[in-house]
Amino acid sequence: MKEKKIILIGAGNVGYHLGRRLDEKGFAIAQVFSRTFEHAEDLAEAVQASYATKFEDLDREGDLYIISVSDRAIAPVARQLARLELDNPLVVHTSGATPATALMPYFDRFGVFYPLQTFSRSRKVDFEAIPICVHAADESDAEKLLNLARQLSPKVYQLKDEQRASLHVAAVFVNNFTNYLFRVGEEILREVDLPFELLRPLILETARKVQEQSPGEMQTGPAVRGDEKTIQRHLDYLHRFPEYRELYQLLSRRIAEELG
Amino acid sequence: MKEKKIILIGAGNVGYHLGRRLDEKGFAIAQVFSRTFEHAEDLAEAVQASYATKFEDLDREGDLYIISVSDRAIAPVARQLARLELDNPLVVHTSGATPATALMPYFDRFGVFYPLQTFSRSRKVDFEAIPICVHAADESDAEKLLNLARQLSPKVYQLKDEQRASLHVAAVFVNNFTNYLFRVGEEILREVDLPFELLRPLILETARKVQEQSPGEMQTGPAVRGDEKTIQRHLDYLHRFPEYRELYQLLSRRIAEELG
Repeated sequence: MKEKKIILIGAGNVGYHLGRRLDEKGFAIAQVFSRTFEHAEDLAEAVQASYATKFEDLDREGDLYIISVSDRAIAPVARQLARLELDNPLVVHTSGATPATALMPYFDRFGVFYPLQTFSRSRKVDFEAIPICVHAADESDAEKLLNLARQLSPKVYQLKDEQRASLHVAAVFVNNFTNYLFRVGEEILREVDLPFELLRPLILETARKVQEQSPGEMQTGPAVRGDEKTIQRHLDYLHRFPEYRELYQLLSRRIAEELG
Repeated sequence: MKEKKIILIGAGNVGYHLGRRLDEKGFAIAQVFSRTFEHAEDLAEAVQASYATKFEDLDREGDLYIISVSDRAIAPVARQLARLELDNPLVVHTSGATPATALMPYFDRFGVFYPLQTFSRSRKVDFEAIPICVHAADESDAEKLLNLARQLSPKVYQLKDEQRASLHVAAVFVNNFTNYLFRVGEEILREVDLPFELLRPLILETARKVQEQSPGEMQTGPAVRGDEKTIQRHLDYLHRFPEYRELYQLLSRRIAEELG
């Protein structure tokens, strides 16, 4: 796909890092589209592409259109794109949460190109460690996407829509919900004037431990030990945080039942 | 405290790493005590100490006794130690969960020396990044422990019992409960024949992100966005995992109420 014309629609966190990775690996991006002028210009400059901020200015001769916008914007963007009467390109989105079939009403050739990571504009990411999950309705399109993905990352998976849906739910647990538990830790410390700094090394080591091992085997703490005395002391303490207390109880019960 | 005689009681995960760090930093450990012969011998050899496996063989001339055993064994061990009629040494435990006052019935000089990390025997730990939380009933003992701690780690905190209790609850959230969420992710993937491997880079990056920033500011995902459509799709999916569904609901509600 190296000589094919790639159009990148959306220059948010995912679009930004994906665009830069494509460029870094020698894939020319013909055009960057974003309704946010600064984003369009910024990324276009970084990858030496032209840019557009209005649909009427979009390059209609692309071979691959990558829609990298928020979940709720995927269908509206696809609809706008379909109105341009393109020449049967392959159109993919980069979302874990949206089925590929969201693109089906608009295009004959559609798929998903989903890099599984939490992206921030300001943080450099190591694409070598990012799994890319691809899917396409058509087998030869899937091959094309697999080939492209393999040049961006050594970890490439071809997933069905149902598998990607599971993966996205799992990602919410290990990323969004985990981050919320970090927040809970921060709030508990704040109440006794201790800095979050204290918890950072523990958080990092907890994540490192499961890089080689299975979390089911790494479980520690009062709940898995059946240490009712400590659990009770913690619950007494948490009377001042009723919402965290409820969460503590549910998580402890789950751990005890599943792993205790 | 460099010339003082240190006796280490317990050679489990914490005792093992703490003993090795003391030795590495030039503190002579006079004796290692463990009822598990292999543990006593193994650590004693590593730190060039003698070892004992019975209380009657314990060195009675220590200046500092470090009790590094499970929470439920602290009081029984302290009782045994007190029977030996020691010469008024400083006695500390290494637990985050047990108040210092658990040692009060047995010793005049007591305290806590708590390295906040998740230790496994087989994993090397970077003590430079481990906060050590100390506490002693007596101010000059506290000074001694602070001095000792500062030679093991640059991150030393003097905490009251109540603060350490808070810290331990917070640690359960960011370590034990977080690890359980990793396990949930693993189980959700298992059902659709996907490897946990897929989630590892996301887990690591989630932990890395909060090394510099506050988790309250890093929160992403459907709950904080108020993306009811995605939440509903996830809940529908989780009908096959009723226990995870309940957890998903509670966590999403907490995130929406607190950060949404």
